[in-house]
Amino acid sequence: MSAAEDWLAAHEAEGVETIAAFCRIPSLSADPAYREAIPEAAGFVEARLAEAGFGTVERIETGGHPCVYAERIVDPAKPTVLVYGHYDVQPPDPLDKWRSPPFEPEVRDDRLYARGAADDKGPLTVALHALRALHETSGLPLNVKVLVEGEEESGSPHFAPTVARMRDRLACDLVVSADGAMWRADLPSVTVASRGMVALDVEVAGAGKDLHSGRHGGSAPNPVRALVRMLAGLHDDEGRVIVPGFADDATPPDPRIGEAIRASGFDVSAYFDGIGAPRPDPLPSAEELLTRQWLIPTLEFNGISGGYAGEGTKTVIPATARAKITCRLVAGQEPDAVVAAIEAQLRALLPPGYALEVHRHGPGSAAFASDPDLPGLKVAEEVLEEIMGRRPLRVAMGATIPIGEVFQRYLGRGVVFFSFATADEDYHAPNEFFRLSSFRKGCIAWIRLLERLA
Amino acid sequence: MSAAEDWLAAHEAEGVETIAAFCRIPSLSADPAYREAIPEAAGFVEARLAEAGFGTVERIETGGHPCVYAERIVDPAKPTVLVYGHYDVQPPDPLDKWRSPPFEPEVRDDRLYARGAADDKGPLTVALHALRALHETSGLPLNVKVLVEGEEESGSPHFAPTVARMRDRLACDLVVSADGAMWRADLPSVTVASRGMVALDVEVAGAGKDLHSGRHGGSAPNPVRALVRMLAGLHDDEGRVIVPGFADDATPPDPRIGEAIRASGFDVSAYFDGIGAPRPDPLPSAEELLTRQWLIPTLEFNGISGGYAGEGTKTVIPATARAKITCRLVAGQEPDAVVAAIEAQLRALLPPGYALEVHRHGPGSAAFASDPDLPGLKVAEEVLEEIMGRRPLRVAMGATIPIGEVFQRYLGRGVVFFSFATADEDYHAPNEFFRLSSFRKGCIAWIRLLERLA
Repeated sequence: MSAAEDWLAAHEAEGVETIAAFCRIPSLSADPAYREAIPEAAGFVEARLAEAGFGTVERIETGGHPCVYAERIVDPAKPTVLVYGHYDVQPPDPLDKWRSPPFEPEVRDDRLYARGAADDKGPLTVALHALRALHETSGLPLNVKVLVEGEEESGSPHFAPTVARMRDRLACDLVVSADGAMWRADLPSVTVASRGMVALDVEVAGAGKDLHSGRHGGSAPNPVRALVRMLAGLHDDEGRVIVPGFADDATPPDPRIGEAIRASGFDVSAYFDGIGAPRPDPLPSAEELLTRQWLIPTLEFNGISGGYAGEGTKTVIPATARAKITCRLVAGQEPDAVVAAIEAQLRALLPPGYALEVHRHGPGSAAFASDPDLPGLKVAEEVLEEIMGRRPLRVAMGATIPIGEVFQRYLGRGVVFFSFATADEDYHAPNEFFRLSSFRKGCIAWIRLLERLA
Repeated sequence: MSAAEDWLAAHEAEGVETIAAFCRIPSLSADPAYREAIPEAAGFVEARLAEAGFGTVERIETGGHPCVYAERIVDPAKPTVLVYGHYDVQPPDPLDKWRSPPFEPEVRDDRLYARGAADDKGPLTVALHALRALHETSGLPLNVKVLVEGEEESGSPHFAPTVARMRDRLACDLVVSADGAMWRADLPSVTVASRGMVALDVEVAGAGKDLHSGRHGGSAPNPVRALVRMLAGLHDDEGRVIVPGFADDATPPDPRIGEAIRASGFDVSAYFDGIGAPRPDPLPSAEELLTRQWLIPTLEFNGISGGYAGEGTKTVIPATARAKITCRLVAGQEPDAVVAAIEAQLRALLPPGYALEVHRHGPGSAAFASDPDLPGLKVAEEVLEEIMGRRPLRVAMGATIPIGEVFQRYLGRGVVFFSFATADEDYHAPNEFFRLSSFRKGCIAWIRLLERLA
């Protein structure tokens, strides 16, 4: 063991407490009610970077929630790594499903439970703790820049322009991301592709106010009726998106991801049992299911609302009905074109006598696909094999890490996803947790990765 | 003017304050959070009945919210009238749309604004105030029984069994209802038919918990997607219900209601403008619109919910999605058969991999249609013509007054609807109001009706 790894073993409890303290800050990026927690979380990251020996630590205004930037150039002749993470979290609802409160971290069975524990406060702390271990012992083996954003859970609306503006300062040889969970806890993997995302709200309006459903029933517009017809026209019976033009520009996926799908031994019945859903009959094949999860674009309804949702009955015709939609995009699909296609289809499906509003959340992000020959990727695979005892699979990710595509586009450098969260840790859901065993392994892995990259 | 009418003129302010005090009690029948207001509202009615000289005033347990019953037999040889009303109200949401708080009555422009003002606390107070005027002056001209329920806004689930159980005590010659608004403020009318109602909740479940829409998008069940497809399968493009068996038992409406429709000079454009809805293109004819509102059964979505409804974006696949449905029924349709038909259609439309629950609220109620030759109806028409200066139309009502059919079935007596609310008074919506001019006219009309019926 190196001196840095010794330091880690002696400071494990402190590292866990750092994650817990980070998770106590309710830094929801999507909900203005929590806006005071945003600078608090940014300040928390700044303090950890100062502790890890970074002399330059700055708050970068973005037009939205700020980024934190830090850099430490130990030797201009050495390579430079840019570390990425985010300090914001998803909303915690439904609150009543949490066993312990989302912003009061609790360790149970070697897992730390809290909103943000896995996405991304635990994995980001892994990187920051490893940087501190190097600083406290052997020193940084290469130049390190760090960029931590605060809008990842809101679709990173200001991140791309910020990277574009800072492109000179961010110049590096490789980006290593502390975000982007591993696929399975039992199977090491590196993510070489992730889907893009675009988000929109749809609102259909009928009358100017809620109406009595007895007096007006049958004659007044019912926006819920209109909305369900329109939304039902976006998929076919098998759940495939049928919006004209939706996926026209999609390019075929890297065939090696298909190999990983076939090699994965994925158990479809266990998947449905694991998410607590009835097994569909007929059951899709493993290949079909993973292909839909990783390589096919989606149009998912994240929420629907309109009219009365309380107990009992309210005999009302609602004035409005709303749906929240996010699409996951694959390589080749442009967010602007996807939104335009959906809006056009919704307008085509809008019945007479209703008004439609489509509101887009931020610019969205295109999908990411890594260069298969990226040298940093191979180093990361070696380190993972060493620590996890098995050569990692190259997998795709259904979820979106907008930064992959953004860094490639603006810095012209490859991105390695090196997060130690795993996809079963209920991020974006109640009872999110982070395995403390992943914290221990992850810190060692980050130290070795940085040493090898030097 | 009679002595009773003189008394009314002298006690008008007191009557208005009685309505306001009644409306200050938030007696929502559908929401258990307001359960303490129920006995308070019942007690309020009892106090007004005692004030009007009723010696017998009782609270009747029903298994749900209680009824209030009172009787005063002045002479067994005289006819007996049974007066009906209800003390419960609709939920007040959306609260932010109220100009003054729903349970803090405010008089503006000779209108009293409050939840329940028009439905039914104002019109019920009209009847009680008229009874008191007679008691304080000439005395009751005939025997009067009064039955006031507390579950009308929840579909009156315990009312029919209560009337069945009390049928001997409730024996009478005619029922006069203080509930059941007049059609238009500018056109006197008597309601001779009203639609029935049945209410149900639908819940579709997918996974056992909310899931990340990136990681699981495309592979996991999305109950919102399933629900919108199912709900879209209940109507055709023109909004007609296409549930097999839904209206098989409907009987044709009384043709004289069609005559009223044609005589009404109903302005379809003004209707859509009045409710603040875009005018559909093409615009339906007046006859088509009123026929749909009065004489065609409906299946309306009163609410839909599932997943995230807050600000911004939450990238979640919801575990469940729900809809609230009420149907308005026409003569011949049985509530049980209608619910069975809808549930069968929903089950037929349920995609594989989802669970469906259908929950019915109460037994519902069949439609009401009056005997066109009912003597009490003709007396009511004479009084209305006298006071309003124009012979009233016989109209049907889109809304449901379950008691019409219940009293006909269990007491074998006709029912006259004699409410002085009008259908434009935003009952079941924000800013419900009751015209104080209707209060003044209504009290006089009730006195004359009771005197003529004697």
